[in-house]
Amino acid sequence: MTLTDETATPVHHEDLTALGARLRTALDGPYAAERSVGRATFPADDLLRDPGLDVAQSREWTLGRLRELERHGFGHAGVPDGPNSVSDPLTAVMAFEMLAHGDLSVTIKSGVQFGLFGGAVTNLGTEWHHATFLPGITDLSLLGGFAMTELGHGSDVASLETTITYDPETDEFDVHSPTPGATKAYIGNAAKDGTMAAVFGQLWVGGTCHGVHVVLVPLRDDDGNDLPGITTGDQGHKGGLLGVDNGTIRFDHVRVERRMLLDRFGGVGDDGAYSSPIENANRRFFTMLGTLVRGRVCVGGGAGITARRALSIATRYALRRRQFPAAGRPGGVLLLDYLVHQRRLLPRIARSYALGFAQNELIEALVHVQGPGDSTETEQRELETRAAGLKAMTTWFANETVQEAREACGGSGYLSENQLTEMRRDVDIFATFEGDNTVLLQSVTKALLTDFKREWSELDRSGVMQATAKVAGETVVEATSANLVLDRLASAVRRKPEETTLTDRRWHALMFEERARHSLESLARRMRAASTASGDSFEAFNALGEHVQFAAKAHLERLALQAFIDGIRGCEDPEARGVLEDLCSLYALSSIHDQRAWFLEHNRISSSRSKAIGQQLDDLCRRLRPHALGLVEGMGIPESWLGAAILRD
Amino acid sequence: MTLTDETATPVHHEDLTALGARLRTALDGPYAAERSVGRATFPADDLLRDPGLDVAQSREWTLGRLRELERHGFGHAGVPDGPNSVSDPLTAVMAFEMLAHGDLSVTIKSGVQFGLFGGAVTNLGTEWHHATFLPGITDLSLLGGFAMTELGHGSDVASLETTITYDPETDEFDVHSPTPGATKAYIGNAAKDGTMAAVFGQLWVGGTCHGVHVVLVPLRDDDGNDLPGITTGDQGHKGGLLGVDNGTIRFDHVRVERRMLLDRFGGVGDDGAYSSPIENANRRFFTMLGTLVRGRVCVGGGAGITARRALSIATRYALRRRQFPAAGRPGGVLLLDYLVHQRRLLPRIARSYALGFAQNELIEALVHVQGPGDSTETEQRELETRAAGLKAMTTWFANETVQEAREACGGSGYLSENQLTEMRRDVDIFATFEGDNTVLLQSVTKALLTDFKREWSELDRSGVMQATAKVAGETVVEATSANLVLDRLASAVRRKPEETTLTDRRWHALMFEERARHSLESLARRMRAASTASGDSFEAFNALGEHVQFAAKAHLERLALQAFIDGIRGCEDPEARGVLEDLCSLYALSSIHDQRAWFLEHNRISSSRSKAIGQQLDDLCRRLRPHALGLVEGMGIPESWLGAAILRD
Repeated sequence: MTLTDETATPVHHEDLTALGARLRTALDGPYAAERSVGRATFPADDLLRDPGLDVAQSREWTLGRLRELERHGFGHAGVPDGPNSVSDPLTAVMAFEMLAHGDLSVTIKSGVQFGLFGGAVTNLGTEWHHATFLPGITDLSLLGGFAMTELGHGSDVASLETTITYDPETDEFDVHSPTPGATKAYIGNAAKDGTMAAVFGQLWVGGTCHGVHVVLVPLRDDDGNDLPGITTGDQGHKGGLLGVDNGTIRFDHVRVERRMLLDRFGGVGDDGAYSSPIENANRRFFTMLGTLVRGRVCVGGGAGITARRALSIATRYALRRRQFPAAGRPGGVLLLDYLVHQRRLLPRIARSYALGFAQNELIEALVHVQGPGDSTETEQRELETRAAGLKAMTTWFANETVQEAREACGGSGYLSENQLTEMRRDVDIFATFEGDNTVLLQSVTKALLTDFKREWSELDRSGVMQATAKVAGETVVEATSANLVLDRLASAVRRKPEETTLTDRRWHALMFEERARHSLESLARRMRAASTASGDSFEAFNALGEHVQFAAKAHLERLALQAFIDGIRGCEDPEARGVLEDLCSLYALSSIHDQRAWFLEHNRISSSRSKAIGQQLDDLCRRLRPHALGLVEGMGIPESWLGAAILRD
Repeated sequence: MTLTDETATPVHHEDLTALGARLRTALDGPYAAERSVGRATFPADDLLRDPGLDVAQSREWTLGRLRELERHGFGHAGVPDGPNSVSDPLTAVMAFEMLAHGDLSVTIKSGVQFGLFGGAVTNLGTEWHHATFLPGITDLSLLGGFAMTELGHGSDVASLETTITYDPETDEFDVHSPTPGATKAYIGNAAKDGTMAAVFGQLWVGGTCHGVHVVLVPLRDDDGNDLPGITTGDQGHKGGLLGVDNGTIRFDHVRVERRMLLDRFGGVGDDGAYSSPIENANRRFFTMLGTLVRGRVCVGGGAGITARRALSIATRYALRRRQFPAAGRPGGVLLLDYLVHQRRLLPRIARSYALGFAQNELIEALVHVQGPGDSTETEQRELETRAAGLKAMTTWFANETVQEAREACGGSGYLSENQLTEMRRDVDIFATFEGDNTVLLQSVTKALLTDFKREWSELDRSGVMQATAKVAGETVVEATSANLVLDRLASAVRRKPEETTLTDRRWHALMFEERARHSLESLARRMRAASTASGDSFEAFNALGEHVQFAAKAHLERLALQAFIDGIRGCEDPEARGVLEDLCSLYALSSIHDQRAWFLEHNRISSSRSKAIGQQLDDLCRRLRPHALGLVEGMGIPESWLGAAILRD
């Protein structure tokens, strides 16, 4: 996507309501210009795949579409096309988002080729790799796979079994799958199109294992046959994403030249000895994995767009479709006039905005860390944590939302021509790939606790821990994952929280802060107890599983509320701002309502206040109902791109 | 299915653990013999459809499989094959269940042909229809559609627009689609295979409309061409159920003989005048729709089996698959040893049992009402309410559970060869067809309130209402949807509920009773207020939407707990009984835990007790973990039928 290309002709024009246009600008936020250009120039003629295509046809269509996008300049998505070009994270993320407006197989195939395979070469390789391979990667003459996952090891990358063994005799690496579990699996581009793969394995040099590294291995000859020692397998029909050719790869002592190792963070020199700029093996491992953060930012963003497409279809349909006649409505009640229907859709629209604002801030952090300027290791780690967490939250949200939208459209929602079932099939796996969501949330909490522990021990040294554990805990959490705006809002009502109204943002801030803070603090206490408990230490930590998930979610909800508040500040139009304030209340109150049991259990709300929240949600839905069309337009999916037959006249 | 056919050879044998066998007997309950014969004789060689088949191939395979089942005696599923045979509800339900162990397109195509089309002819037709059409329906030489739903009218059957107008000149009916919205839609067998349809429309005789009736209309000639005046359409690719040929039908003044009207509840005599055994048009309408109850019983049962298949796959996989290494577990932790994973699967297994026991009682009620003996109108109405409610609960549960199972199997869950994504696609629409779930729950609450109102006014007359409204309310609900066992259990601890343990069945009973009773009672009060409120009466009732859904669910949870308790009583083996007691506690506590906010808000539990529930759920999961295989076997799906590649060695 060439955002600055002045020759690009807008191919798309939409008529929006005034409110819709303003909300869209607000939600597009810091990237309003880029997104606007993207929508105006994206080639949308062949956006959606015919659901009737079989696996072979879907793959052919998808690859063809990718090549067509490349011809239109929407190709390599921020991947540099040679050693003198730079990797541009913003273009990459914007391109992925735009692709997610259409068929998701195209989005993911693009992600595999440019984001993962291209990203590995760019970020883990050095100059020779860039010069040799990036031109082919970006013009699609070299299609590649990202061979990390193994049958026996999904989330547990450190335990990968594939070996990359340096042979000083021939100055080559020997790449090998020693066990059935070492078989690479679910690898995009492996079943058919890929002629090379970036293969993750344990690097052995002179009898010493240096941990996981990545080597480029050619897979197929020009006729598409497996090269000697390579056995690829086709994983065939999947739940969705039929256009992506996922497959397996096994290596039987495959030999590659020494320079095929992507050696930015460690490699073998001319002397046959291993060296690395990062001494500590564990830190090296996480540094290498850390470069993958862009993929998670993209996947979360793409899932967010998918949820918006589904909500756009269901809401626009509910503005047309009439049901049972009722008093004063002889022609039938418009679906969206049923409060139950409003409660199905409007809180999800509110959450879409919240996650969208949070995604904007995540992209800003990504651009900061991966851009040309300097960034600290702390900022990098915070980016990884936030990307992991938002990816989990948004992909789950997308799955549930597409399903809700499907049911909200009744039987017509089930016809493939209305797109919802196809989206649902494709987005399903987003909850698993680029990190299983449950495991990702564990990593979020782990990172929060690491901060916690570090600062705690620093405080201990400085003597502040003379205060009670509780106060210390609060101080610590504030200091680490501090959010000054929320905290200031919360402070103003902390002493008499129940004297606020239910739509008082200060009270929302207080509740979100309390949930995040207290759940992490109490988890830290339980962790400490578990670590000193006698008996089976696995079981001691195992018992904290639900608490770990809760603390991560509470942290991420807080991030989203903060981002929503920041987003409203950026909106200058008073009408749009008023609507966004109501929408933010709907988001915040829905989040509190969903977990009001926790707030009650921890004496953060009274039972009468808790009961009143449902009523307040109804009121907010009624207030937002007249703005439904504008809210949908604000989510930014052009109506003509939705491709749903039920929306055609 | 010929349950008594002594020539049937068992084609299937399973090795079960002792516990598994006993749990299976318990869960099979009153139908243990029928289900056991079903499993032993069901032709399982060609159980699952190749997911790679396209729409045309899927339809062909599905019809072929239906004919094969017919040849094996698993055909017409309780539909009588002529006027001297009787309709057998038990055989119908058992056959549907057994079919749901395999490809769901076959299940639904069978349901369309035998349950809906055959059921309409059987239940709404009279002797000539039975003699003329049932032989062809049962031997599959006459394939038919059930043309109720219209594009403009799904749940709102009373507003159907299709007209069936008697023409005395020719002594024929004129069947017509007056508007685009009158087009029949989503009709199984309409796109391709059906040569006739049972068409729902407004019956007009001599200028008077007698409401919805059903007429048989031939659709296609022997070459498959639409007959004059008929326009069928193919709805093509759907979210799932690709083997069912759903389509649209339009009628342009199609003429059929007078006797083609299914006239059991109303028709036109030789004199050209309308007559009906049921005077009241509204009652006639509900009597006709009431005959459809069997379909809802079947669909709920089929969804329950689907959930069990998914849980069987995910749990058996979690008993094989290892993840990260941990202290004392160098080879990696078995997935099912993670408490988080147990919490994903075991409460769902518990709920599967609860819904299974409830389904058994529902089948008993169906057999009672539709069997040869007498039944009252109250019993019929209760059956309809229960069938509607359990259908909604079980189909939603199936959808969520298959998805949870998919995610619990990670990336391999997404491969079609592991069946979960295919099940998910197929079972999705179960939440919408045979009644949209949200609308069905409204009907449940409406029925409960009708009872409530009737008894309330009776009490008013007898003066009992002199007592406080609250007490009267309680009395009423007890009297109507009384459950003596639960009530007796609850009474024993009503005065000091918090002195019980969290696994005390009496306390569970009390909580379930209180939730159902109080939510209905308070809804009745709000309904009364709404009915006398000034202003927009639609909006007054509209505001109660969430409350209506809650009250229905609370009622159905109570039914399920009761059924579970009844089911345990029927289990004589002490070990199995002990496991079932724990499983019932897990079900009951999960239900309370999910809605503990309600219990807290209504002062039914203290916050410290509420917080303890999570811990208790963990403990129950740990206690049940060693019995996981037996629990899965008890759910009754033979392992070899699961067809999941990940379970093969």
